[in-house]
Amino acid sequence: MAQKNVVVEKSTYVPPDLLPVEIVERKGTGHPDYIADSISEAASRELSRYYLERFGRILHHNLDKVLVVGGQSAPRFGGGEVLQPIYILVSGRATTEVVEHDGSRVPIPVGPLILKATRNWIKASLRYLDPDHHVIIDYRIGKGSIDLVDIYQRAQTYPGANDTSMGIGYAPLSETERLVLETERLLNSQKIKKELPAVGEDIKVMGVRKGDTIHLTVAAAIVSRHVTSTEEYLEVKKEIRKLILEKAAEITNRKVEVYVNTGDDPSKGDKGGLYLVVTGTSAEHGDDGATGRGNRANGLITPFRPMSLEATAGKNPISHIGKLYNVVAFNASQEIAQLDNIKEVYIKLISQIGKPINEPLLAYIAINADENTISRVRHQAEEILAKHLDGLNRLWEKVLRGEVALF
Amino acid sequence: MAQKNVVVEKSTYVPPDLLPVEIVERKGTGHPDYIADSISEAASRELSRYYLERFGRILHHNLDKVLVVGGQSAPRFGGGEVLQPIYILVSGRATTEVVEHDGSRVPIPVGPLILKATRNWIKASLRYLDPDHHVIIDYRIGKGSIDLVDIYQRAQTYPGANDTSMGIGYAPLSETERLVLETERLLNSQKIKKELPAVGEDIKVMGVRKGDTIHLTVAAAIVSRHVTSTEEYLEVKKEIRKLILEKAAEITNRKVEVYVNTGDDPSKGDKGGLYLVVTGTSAEHGDDGATGRGNRANGLITPFRPMSLEATAGKNPISHIGKLYNVVAFNASQEIAQLDNIKEVYIKLISQIGKPINEPLLAYIAINADENTISRVRHQAEEILAKHLDGLNRLWEKVLRGEVALF
Amino acid sequence: MAQKNVVVEKSTYVPPDLLPVEIVERKGTGHPDYIADSISEAASRELSRYYLERFGRILHHNLDKVLVVGGQSAPRFGGGEVLQPIYILVSGRATTEVVEHDGSRVPIPVGPLILKATRNWIKASLRYLDPDHHVIIDYRIGKGSIDLVDIYQRAQTYPGANDTSMGIGYAPLSETERLVLETERLLNSQKIKKELPAVGEDIKVMGVRKGDTIHLTVAAAIVSRHVTSTEEYLEVKKEIRKLILEKAAEITNRKVEVYVNTGDDPSKGDKGGLYLVVTGTSAEHGDDGATGRGNRANGLITPFRPMSLEATAGKNPISHIGKLYNVVAFNASQEIAQLDNIKEVYIKLISQIGKPINEPLLAYIAINADENTISRVRHQAEEILAKHLDGLNRLWEKVLRGEVALF
Amino acid sequence: MAQKNVVVEKSTYVPPDLLPVEIVERKGTGHPDYIADSISEAASRELSRYYLERFGRILHHNLDKVLVVGGQSAPRFGGGEVLQPIYILVSGRATTEVVEHDGSRVPIPVGPLILKATRNWIKASLRYLDPDHHVIIDYRIGKGSIDLVDIYQRAQTYPGANDTSMGIGYAPLSETERLVLETERLLNSQKIKKELPAVGEDIKVMGVRKGDTIHLTVAAAIVSRHVTSTEEYLEVKKEIRKLILEKAAEITNRKVEVYVNTGDDPSKGDKGGLYLVVTGTSAEHGDDGATGRGNRANGLITPFRPMSLEATAGKNPISHIGKLYNVVAFNASQEIAQLDNIKEVYIKLISQIGKPINEPLLAYIAINADENTISRVRHQAEEILAKHLDGLNRLWEKVLRGEVALF
Repeated sequence: MAQKNVVVEKSTYVPPDLLPVEIVERKGTGHPDYIADSISEAASRELSRYYLERFGRILHHNLDKVLVVGGQSAPRFGGGEVLQPIYILVSGRATTEVVEHDGSRVPIPVGPLILKATRNWIKASLRYLDPDHHVIIDYRIGKGSIDLVDIYQRAQTYPGANDTSMGIGYAPLSETERLVLETERLLNSQKIKKELPAVGEDIKVMGVRKGDTIHLTVAAAIVSRHVTSTEEYLEVKKEIRKLILEKAAEITNRKVEVYVNTGDDPSKGDKGGLYLVVTGTSAEHGDDGATGRGNRANGLITPFRPMSLEATAGKNPISHIGKLYNVVAFNASQEIAQLDNIKEVYIKLISQIGKPINEPLLAYIAINADENTISRVRHQAEEILAKHLDGLNRLWEKVLRGEVALF
Repeated sequence: MAQKNVVVEKSTYVPPDLLPVEIVERKGTGHPDYIADSISEAASRELSRYYLERFGRILHHNLDKVLVVGGQSAPRFGGGEVLQPIYILVSGRATTEVVEHDGSRVPIPVGPLILKATRNWIKASLRYLDPDHHVIIDYRIGKGSIDLVDIYQRAQTYPGANDTSMGIGYAPLSETERLVLETERLLNSQKIKKELPAVGEDIKVMGVRKGDTIHLTVAAAIVSRHVTSTEEYLEVKKEIRKLILEKAAEITNRKVEVYVNTGDDPSKGDKGGLYLVVTGTSAEHGDDGATGRGNRANGLITPFRPMSLEATAGKNPISHIGKLYNVVAFNASQEIAQLDNIKEVYIKLISQIGKPINEPLLAYIAINADENTISRVRHQAEEILAKHLDGLNRLWEKVLRGEVALF
Repeated sequence: MAQKNVVVEKSTYVPPDLLPVEIVERKGTGHPDYIADSISEAASRELSRYYLERFGRILHHNLDKVLVVGGQSAPRFGGGEVLQPIYILVSGRATTEVVEHDGSRVPIPVGPLILKATRNWIKASLRYLDPDHHVIIDYRIGKGSIDLVDIYQRAQTYPGANDTSMGIGYAPLSETERLVLETERLLNSQKIKKELPAVGEDIKVMGVRKGDTIHLTVAAAIVSRHVTSTEEYLEVKKEIRKLILEKAAEITNRKVEVYVNTGDDPSKGDKGGLYLVVTGTSAEHGDDGATGRGNRANGLITPFRPMSLEATAGKNPISHIGKLYNVVAFNASQEIAQLDNIKEVYIKLISQIGKPINEPLLAYIAINADENTISRVRHQAEEILAKHLDGLNRLWEKVLRGEVALF
Repeated sequence: MAQKNVVVEKSTYVPPDLLPVEIVERKGTGHPDYIADSISEAASRELSRYYLERFGRILHHNLDKVLVVGGQSAPRFGGGEVLQPIYILVSGRATTEVVEHDGSRVPIPVGPLILKATRNWIKASLRYLDPDHHVIIDYRIGKGSIDLVDIYQRAQTYPGANDTSMGIGYAPLSETERLVLETERLLNSQKIKKELPAVGEDIKVMGVRKGDTIHLTVAAAIVSRHVTSTEEYLEVKKEIRKLILEKAAEITNRKVEVYVNTGDDPSKGDKGGLYLVVTGTSAEHGDDGATGRGNRANGLITPFRPMSLEATAGKNPISHIGKLYNVVAFNASQEIAQLDNIKEVYIKLISQIGKPINEPLLAYIAINADENTISRVRHQAEEILAKHLDGLNRLWEKVLRGEVALF
C-alpha cells in the first residue's frame, strides 16, 4: 500500500457539535444552483452512456459549467403563469469526434444528448416546470477529438490524474448537519409531495446552532396553484413547521426553532407578499444558478468545515480528480467512522498530475479518537481508503447508476 | 366607393402562358424558409389568440423575423442521427405589457406562447423532426406597452395603415405555376406521406417552361430511415417522378420533363452521394432559413410576375399592410378572374400611412379581356375589391382559423 | 456562343414610365435590412480574402442569413442613449477546415473574421452606432471541410452552378426609380452628412407615381444629438425636403411631392412624437432586419418589375448563381441599353445545376426597340451578355474590391 | 455594542503552519474563473456608478453569474491565432427601471453599461485578448423596477440584510498561503510583464506543504508570439522558476520546490506539447469559467480553512451579505491580528434577514493567543469589529474605488 502515501494522524479539529456555533446550509432539488448541478451531471451521464455503448469506454468530457438564468413569472392564488422562460446554457467540453481504427471520423451527437438529459431531469424532478414551454435549453460545448488507437495504446488500469487537485470528506455529520439535510430531504420526499403538494421543490435550509439551540431558517417555495388564499398559504407554512419539528425530534434533543419564509408580508397576499411560485422553483423569477455554487459532495455547505471548492457535478467519472477524490474521501470517511470508538474522521486527498489516480500525492486521514483506538484502527483505516482508491476504476459504474451522492 | 380610389384598366401584361419562357418556384413544408415563415405565422396566431381571449382584441405585434440556423446530421440507410440541433431564433416585436383601465400592468407571456406555437407547428408538420431533441428554440422580442384606455378611445372600424406599403395579387395561375404548386402539394399530401413515407417534407420545385416544354426540377429530401440501400432510394425517386407525371397529365398537355435530385451521385451511396435526411428537412444539415425569403402569398415565387417583397408571415392581421393588402389583392383577383371572359387580373394596392386600411391610396385593377368585357365588368370588379377591402376588419378571423393562404 | 443558349426577343413589357402607376422603394444605409445585407456581404468578403491569401482561392461559403434584432433606445433633444444593444446574429455556412496536401487540417478563424468584418462595416458606415457599446455580435455558422487535393483536381475555368436558380436585370431605370435611388444616395452622401449632420443613415424612400405626379415618401431618422428642439427638427425636415426637390428637378419634369416623416406628431416633441434616433438607425429601437429582405441588385425594390427573390449579399462570389446571375443580368442589361435606339432591356438567366456557370440553361434578352433596331443589335447584345458570362470567373475580383452593386 | 452580538472566544483551530499538511490555491488574472469574477465585479461597479450619478444611490442588482465559455485557438511559435472567440454571458438581476417622484419611468441602459465594463476590464487586464475580435459579449439580465418614493421613505442608515447568509475571514496568512499569493502577484506584476512578456496572465498556483517542504505547482500560460522555439519556451519556464525561488526566499525558510507546467511534452513543440496561448488566457481554447468558482475574498482557495461559498464578485455593495460580511470579516481579522501577542484570528458573521446589516445575528471572533492576551484584547477586538460593521454604510465607496480585495 506504500504507493498510496496514506498518513493517519490524530485529528486536530474540534467536532462541530462541541463548538459554540455551527452554520450549515442545504440547497434543495428546485434551487437554481441545484438545478445547474443536476443538469451538469445528467448531461455528463447521458454522454457517458453514449460513449460506453458506442466505443466501450467513457471518453473525455467536462460539463461542469451550466448556467441557469432566471425567467419571469406571475404566480397568483390558484394559478399564475410563466411570463418569460428560464434560459439554461450548458457549457463545457466534450469529445465531439472519434477517429476509429480505420481512420474514419465518427461525430458524437453531443447537442441532442444534452437536450435529452436536461429535459428528462426536469421532467423527473420538477413537477410543475414544463420543459416544453417554460425553459429554453441551449449549449456551447468546446470540441475535442480523440483517436481510438491512442486510447487503446494508452489503456491502463488507472488513468493519470487530470490535474493537481484535491478532495475532502468527513464523517459523521453533526446533529445540525443531519437536521439540515433531513429537513430538505423530507420536504422534497415523494410522501410530502403527495400529502402537501403545495410545497415546491425549491427548498433552502439554513441551520444556525448557537449553544444548544438550533435555528432552522427554511425558504420553501409554495406552488401557487395549490393555495387559494393567504390563509391557505399560512396553513401550509404551519404544516411545514410541524413536519420539521417532528423530524427534528427524531434527530436531536436540542431546542429547535423553525422559521419558514421569514420574508413574507401576508398583508400583500399574492401581490408579492408571499413566497409563491408557479413552477416550484425560484428560477422562474430571476433567481440564477450555476454549477458548483451549491452543496458539496455530502449534500451540505459547511463553511466551518474543510471543503473543496471543486464542482463534483458534470465532470467525467473516469479521470477527473475534482469529482473522484471528493467522492472517495466522503465514502471512505463514512466507512472508517463506523469503526469502534471513533468520534470523527477527516480525509484529504491530493492528486499528482499525470500519476495514476489511485496513487495520490498525499492521502491524509485524521481521526478523532483516543490514542489507543487510533493505534488499533490505523491499519484498518489505511486499508479502507486504499480499497476505495483502488475502486476508482469502477466508480463510474455507480456514478452512472446514480448511486453516488454528489451534491 | 370613391374613397377606395379604385382604378380599373386594361392589363398591359402578356399572360405568362403566352411568353416564351417562364420560371416558377415553390418551397415546400420542410424547406428552411418555409419553416421560418410557418413559425412566424404560428407564433403570431398564438399571440393573437391570447390577446383576443384576454383583452378582447388583437394587440400590436410583428414576428416576421424568424431565423432557422441549420444543424448537423449524419443520415444513413435505415437510420441516421441528428448531431447538432437546429437553432431557431424568433425575433420581432410584440405588446409585452398592457396597462388596464385601473392602471394595473398586465405582462404578456410572450416567450412561453412562442415556444408553444413553434413546438406545435413542428410536431404537426414535420413527422421526424423531434422538437425535444433536434431543435433549440430561442427568441428575442422587442418590448412594447399599450394603454387599453388609449386603444378604446382610438377604437374605430378600420385601423390606420401602419406604413406606406403595398400588396399585389393576380389570377389565374399559369399552367406552369399550377403544376409547380400542385407538385409540391401532392408530395406533401397525407396520402403520399402514407404511401411513400420516405418522401421528406423538404420539397423544392422549380419549373422552367421553354416554349411547350416544362422542366420540373424537384429537390426532394428522402428520409433515411425509410430506405435501406441506394437501390431503394432510386426506386423512391422513380416513384416520385411517376407520381408527378401523373399529376402533370391532369394539368397540362405540354411536354413535362421531371428531374428529381439531380445532384445525386449514387456511387457514393449514403456517404454523401444522395439527398438523404434524418428528419425530413435539409435544415438538419446546414441549410438556413428566414421569414420572407420563400413563397409569396399565392404559394409561389414568380420572378417574372409582379411581386411584393413583404413577408406576409408573422405580421399582425389587424393593421399590417404588408400582410393584409397581399391577401386582399390575391383573394379579390381570384374572385374577379371568375367573371365571364376574363383572361387575367392583376390587383395592386398601395396604402397611405395613417389612413384607414380600407381606404388605400391607390387600388389598381388591371384586367386582360376585350374592351367590351372590361366595360361590362368594371363596376363589378370595383365592387368585389371594395368588398374585400371592407372585409379587412374581419380578415383576422380567417387568418386565425388558418383559412388564408399566406406563403 | 451556342452553349450560352442566348435568346433575343422583342420585349413585351410596357416601360414603367408609360404605365399609369409606379411604385418603387429603396432602403438606405442605416435601414435594418440594409445593415443585414451589408454585414452578410462584408463577412463574405473578409472570409474570401482570408481564403485567397491562405489557399490561393475563395472557398465555399454562404453567409446570406444575418439577423439584426432591434434594441431599445431613448433619444431626446441634444442627446439620448441606447438602453439595450442591437443583437446581430450572423448565420450561414463556411469552409471551417481545409485538409492540405499533406493531410494536415487547417482550421479557419471564421468567428474572428466575422466579428472584424461586422465591426468594421459599422464603424465605416454608421457614424453614431458604436460597435463597442451598442451592439452584440454573435454568429452560428455551419461547419464545412474541404480537401485541397479534391479542389485542385476538380479545378476548371468555370465552376458548376450550385443550384437551379436565376438572375434578372433590366435597364435603364425609370424616372421614378432614379429619383428614389438618387434621393437616398443624396441624403446619405458625405456632403449632406457634413452639411446636415442631423440626417441619420436610416433613410427609406418610397416613390409612388400616379400619372405625372411622383409622391416621394421619405422616412429619415433624425439624430437626436443634432437637434435641440421640435423647431430645429422641423427645420431639418424642411431642409431635407428642399434638398430632395432640388435633386428631383435635375431628374424629372414631372410634379414631385415630398413627404418627410409623415407619422410625426410634433406636439409630443421628443416624447415619441418625432422620428428621432440616437445612433442613426431605427434598429436601435425594435426595428429588425434580415439579409435579402431589402433592395435588389440594382438598389431598388420594384414590385411591378421582374425581380429575383434571391439575396445577393453574403453568398460566395465564385459559384453562387443567386448572386452572380443577378449581377451579370444587371450589368449586361445596362451595357446593352447603351446601344442606339434601345428603349429598354430585360435579361433573365437561368442556371442548370452542375453545368459551368458561364453556360446557363437559358439566357433571355428582351429588348424594347423597333424591329429594325432589334435585328441590328441582336448579335451585339448576345456578345455583350456572353462576355459578361465569360467574365464570371473574374467577377469575384470586382466583388472583393466593392465595385459591384449588390443591394 | 450589545446589538452587535459579538462573541470573543479562544480559537480551537490549529494554525495551518503547525499542521503537517497544507494545500492552498490561487487562480490568477487570466484564469477563466478569475475573468468571470472580474467581469461580474466590473459590471456591478459600472452599474453602481451609473445609479449613483443618476439617482444619488446604488440601486439593487446582483450580477454574480457570469459564464466564460472557452473558444478555440491555434497558438504557434512566434504567432498563432484565435479560431473561435470566447463567449461571455453576463447574467443576473438589476434595477432596469426607476419610477421617479413624478411617476415617470426611467429606463436604465444596463446592456451598454455591461458591455462597456466588460470590454474595459479586458483591455486593462489582458494584454493580448482583443475584445473586438476574440470575444463575444452577451448578457441576460432579469428586470427589476423600483419606486424612488418607496426608497426614500425606507431610507435608513443601514439597509436590512438581503438574506440569511454569512461571511468568514481570518488572519494572518500562513507562509504557504503568502507564498502562493505572492507568486501569482509577482508573475502578473507589471514589472515581470515588462521583463518577461512571454508570461501570460493565466497563472494558477497550487501550494502543497508536507512538513517543511512546500511544493509549488505553477501553471503559467506562455504567450506564443513571444517564444519562437521550444528552447525559448523552456528558457522562460526556467526564468519563472528562478523568479519564484527568489521570491520564496523572502517569505520562507522552508524548502520550496517549484514545478512549472508539469504537463509539458517538449518533444511535441508547439503541436500541443507546451502550454502556449495566443491571448494570455486558457479561455481561448476550451477552458470555461464562472463567477464564484475561484478565489475567496482573501485571494486564495484554502480548503482546510473555514470558507464561505458565496461569490463576492458582482453583488451590490449596499446590502448583499454574501459580499459585505466576507469583506468585513477579512478586514477586521487583519486589524485584530495586528494586536500584540495574537497568533491568529478568525471572524464569522451571520446575518439575520431583514435586520440592519450592521447588526448581525451572530458575530464570532476566535482568537489564538494565551488567556491573558485574550482577556486584554477582548474589548478592543469587539470594538474593531463593531467599527467595521458600522462602516458598512460607506464600504461601497471603497468597493467602487477598487480598494477592497474581493477575490
